[in-house]
Amino acid sequence: MTNKDARTPASTQKPTEASVGKEAGKSIGWHKAYVEGTRPGLRVPVRQVHLTNGQSVTLYDTSGPYTDPLVDTDVRRGLAPVRENWITARGDTEEYTGRPVRPEDDGIRHTSPRGGLRNLDAVFPGRPRQPRRGRAGGVSGAVTQLAYARRGEITPEMEYVAIRENVSPEVVREEIAAGRAVLPANVNHPETEPMIIGKRFLVKVNANIGNSAVTSSIEEEVEKMTWATRWGADTVMDLSTGRNIHTTREWVLRNSPVPIGTVPLYQALEKVDGRAEELTWEIYKDTVIEQAEQGVDYMTVHAGVRLAYVPLTAHRKTGIVSRGGSIMAAWCLAHHKESFLYENFGELCEILAAYDVTYSLGDGLRPGSIADANDEAQFAELRTLGELNRIARRLNVQTMIEGPGHVPMHKIKENIDLQQEICDEAPFYTLGPLTTDVAPAYDHITSGIGAAMIAWWGTAMLCYVTPKEHLGLPDRDDVKTGVITYKIAAHAADVAKGHPGAQEWDDALSDARFEFRWEDQFNLALDPDTAREFHDKTLPAEPAKTAHFCSMCGPKFCSMKISRSITERFGGTSAEGASAEEIAEGMLRKSKEFAEAGNRVYLPLTD
Amino acid sequence: MTNKDARTPASTQKPTEASVGKEAGKSIGWHKAYVEGTRPGLRVPVRQVHLTNGQSVTLYDTSGPYTDPLVDTDVRRGLAPVRENWITARGDTEEYTGRPVRPEDDGIRHTSPRGGLRNLDAVFPGRPRQPRRGRAGGVSGAVTQLAYARRGEITPEMEYVAIRENVSPEVVREEIAAGRAVLPANVNHPETEPMIIGKRFLVKVNANIGNSAVTSSIEEEVEKMTWATRWGADTVMDLSTGRNIHTTREWVLRNSPVPIGTVPLYQALEKVDGRAEELTWEIYKDTVIEQAEQGVDYMTVHAGVRLAYVPLTAHRKTGIVSRGGSIMAAWCLAHHKESFLYENFGELCEILAAYDVTYSLGDGLRPGSIADANDEAQFAELRTLGELNRIARRLNVQTMIEGPGHVPMHKIKENIDLQQEICDEAPFYTLGPLTTDVAPAYDHITSGIGAAMIAWWGTAMLCYVTPKEHLGLPDRDDVKTGVITYKIAAHAADVAKGHPGAQEWDDALSDARFEFRWEDQFNLALDPDTAREFHDKTLPAEPAKTAHFCSMCGPKFCSMKISRSITERFGGTSAEGASAEEIAEGMLRKSKEFAEAGNRVYLPLTD
Repeated sequence: MTNKDARTPASTQKPTEASVGKEAGKSIGWHKAYVEGTRPGLRVPVRQVHLTNGQSVTLYDTSGPYTDPLVDTDVRRGLAPVRENWITARGDTEEYTGRPVRPEDDGIRHTSPRGGLRNLDAVFPGRPRQPRRGRAGGVSGAVTQLAYARRGEITPEMEYVAIRENVSPEVVREEIAAGRAVLPANVNHPETEPMIIGKRFLVKVNANIGNSAVTSSIEEEVEKMTWATRWGADTVMDLSTGRNIHTTREWVLRNSPVPIGTVPLYQALEKVDGRAEELTWEIYKDTVIEQAEQGVDYMTVHAGVRLAYVPLTAHRKTGIVSRGGSIMAAWCLAHHKESFLYENFGELCEILAAYDVTYSLGDGLRPGSIADANDEAQFAELRTLGELNRIARRLNVQTMIEGPGHVPMHKIKENIDLQQEICDEAPFYTLGPLTTDVAPAYDHITSGIGAAMIAWWGTAMLCYVTPKEHLGLPDRDDVKTGVITYKIAAHAADVAKGHPGAQEWDDALSDARFEFRWEDQFNLALDPDTAREFHDKTLPAEPAKTAHFCSMCGPKFCSMKISRSITERFGGTSAEGASAEEIAEGMLRKSKEFAEAGNRVYLPLTD
Repeated sequence: MTNKDARTPASTQKPTEASVGKEAGKSIGWHKAYVEGTRPGLRVPVRQVHLTNGQSVTLYDTSGPYTDPLVDTDVRRGLAPVRENWITARGDTEEYTGRPVRPEDDGIRHTSPRGGLRNLDAVFPGRPRQPRRGRAGGVSGAVTQLAYARRGEITPEMEYVAIRENVSPEVVREEIAAGRAVLPANVNHPETEPMIIGKRFLVKVNANIGNSAVTSSIEEEVEKMTWATRWGADTVMDLSTGRNIHTTREWVLRNSPVPIGTVPLYQALEKVDGRAEELTWEIYKDTVIEQAEQGVDYMTVHAGVRLAYVPLTAHRKTGIVSRGGSIMAAWCLAHHKESFLYENFGELCEILAAYDVTYSLGDGLRPGSIADANDEAQFAELRTLGELNRIARRLNVQTMIEGPGHVPMHKIKENIDLQQEICDEAPFYTLGPLTTDVAPAYDHITSGIGAAMIAWWGTAMLCYVTPKEHLGLPDRDDVKTGVITYKIAAHAADVAKGHPGAQEWDDALSDARFEFRWEDQFNLALDPDTAREFHDKTLPAEPAKTAHFCSMCGPKFCSMKISRSITERFGGTSAEGASAEEIAEGMLRKSKEFAEAGNRVYLPLTD
């Protein structure tokens, strides 16, 4: 077994290696590599881990070109548009003069002190680009992966994800066509490396970034994005609410190898200076087009918060905790009118279909405490999301459904079961859920528990929660902790679901552990740096990394060592299928050998 | 609602307050308090959280006298023997001249350089004490809580835990009598504050401490114990394997308010210089008596590792990962004989019954990787544990059963279901289980997921796992992280099981969150210090702690604020039970009021 394809063997092909990773000093043992597809330029990145025993393990890779030493990345220029040729080759889109970028797109409502408007074009220095959209209108003119899948086309994007997921392209097409999976890929975000979200595939993880009125900067947000994807985030949502929203998003998109999601309502609200009642369908639509032209791949739309549901939240313990949900509830109340998002949903579908923006139908009425879980407000909205999902699907717009929130363990399964039933198996995208409210500062853990469970039962993508949830904005360390925690939940679910190859990753690491191959353990770990650091704190010397014992028990009491001795002494003779007599006989023989060898249960360190 | 009894209301009595906690500067808002029982001196400690709205919440407290400013603790004197009068009043035990303490008990095999043996009596300076044991032998002479419960006696210990768990003393007695719960309380550990382990009660958490040949000291171990119980550890296992085992254990026991568990096999192995094949029943028995005389409350005994099961592990991915299991397997192999623990189990029961030491029947063949989960070796041992449990129960020895280990999510339920069936509902005490092997340095999380699930399904006590698992010895921070993670898992399970009062803790915190009572949120949090620290990183100023918005969204976009506005505007009018017309009418009216009030969805900060 020389190419042990753990987790997601990219294909039967051996990946082409890109050479040693950038941080060679720290990361000897793994390399960026690519698996070639059938089409020119279709190269799927993988993380190739080389073990000291000569074997190698191939892992799914979300880190983008940043971990490829042969690619010269420049955050001011942006990433190469890997999908551009595929998009233009389809011939169903056209470039056009986009909506002019206005100062208020960046939250600037007045002329600058020096007079005149800021030149927003100069803020992101990368190559100028005209936006692109579907040439023809209507359902048949949709340029979405859903439309292509329904027509029986296997796009390069579908082939790409098929290689990533180690399934046939036809399975990918079928799942998308049935609406059970989405492949978020705006025609204006050609930099994205295609990925798929659906219960038939590996469970995905989203990381939220975003400045707020209180803190953060553009550079920090871009850095958070690359940092999050380095640790395994499959998509990133930019939830910025302060100044420079448009410009921040432009930088993030031009540098992101993963799909970017947003909540357009946040920016729309900025445009009316935070006065929810002044929001209009026109302002909202303008914002959606602005973001679609930039390349946002999926958008959270809280169209399920209907006027009639608002009173259902009045006597909740924690009311409405979704920002988008509370804004729409305030609007409905102020006007005593049905939600403009619900009323204009069909038109919104037509816009999204022209760019292949995927819906993430928001759960504006999700519970904000376990006391409010699975209540009337939550499920009333879910039923509406089911209705909207059918409309979007009919109009060829890819759609996923957002889910809670705070849910105690015994009420989690009802969430996924109902969602799958009501929403015709559309991908479920859940925040946690948090299984208890008593541990602020540890909500990555309270929610990681719920996330693993709901993903096992069918959730397709998990929105991470960081330790700072409920307390403050996540910094770099929090983003990493959130992503790692959620990668654990997602992978635990992949294993429990029996995803092909998922457990092979665990097996490779367990083999390394049992054979005291410390370097291999570190290199296979979800977070090699921290694993190595923790080990070195107890046994800092280099020879300890090849020592035949663990730092927990020391050289004399190591159970693994004793156990290896047993394995080796029984070596070759399988107990399976042997009769009781054969086993007894074999044991007697081994027992004698054992005594003759001096009853040594601790292998010498030179062994 | 002035005494909101969250989680485990101690009784209908109002607790007597002990006054402000020791760290008054940091901990304003909670106090150590006591609930008095019916017997003199029976005072059950609780943590009383005083909220800014005048309400209070009573929480279970494991921290011992250390958090009571009225008690003057001295680690060199030990804690007061709160149970002593109850034990002597029963009149069924006697003091006797114990087994002499020998240098080899502390791993010292040679005379000291200054000549002569070290004076071990001087090592722990606290009051000298004769050991105590049951006066009469045999089953009827057992001085165990199981024996008393069967005779229909409600001991002070049972009343104590009934108050702690907010159930009737009769329920406690019944559960113990049926073998479904254990109350570990060695007659030689009178310092322990009684607690109960059983699926009918709150899920408990054990923290392991213990020096190893490589690192650590006596003082550090005692400090780890008080630190672990401060954060909520319900029991502590001292797994020391290096020098000074006896003395370390003496210091830990004399200062521990929680039951102490050990694995006597580790010390026995020290006495034969680490040569497993030289272990004998006599050396083991001597060690058990040594530890029972010191006051160890429960002991892990790997009597289920039978000779015939050893070959079943030879072809596992990770063999035998339990230290005790591998030692016994090596012994069986070396002698080609049945385990001396299995052969002498009846005699062992008689010893344990004389001190009320509780069995923790060890799972020496637990899986060390998800690949090995639920295999033949594991379940063969479990069946033997079921057999041994029946013997122990017949002989009036309290018994719990240890469980895995590494188990993927879809195989967890089979573990608890089989254990409950095979072991006649004896309490299950599980390590994790870890749901994936790929995240060394994060195994508190990989296992916290499994722990929450298996506890929901019936596990009575969870053995914590720290971030250092597989990598090194836990330090102070790791112990805290491990305990907090497992308290989350345990409490999430209490909520999911519907334990009386469990969710009230969540509700109190959610109320505080929705009402922007930041100080109350911190004081109710599982870890107030870290919650406060995280909040202060974003909004350090003191006024921010009463600010009516969260630091995530800033003052303008806070959904909780908008939502509170909705709640307040609908205030008083319940949507429940109202007709569609009434709701529509009410909404129209509210909508007008809303507009008349200026459509303000953001409450001013002075609101």
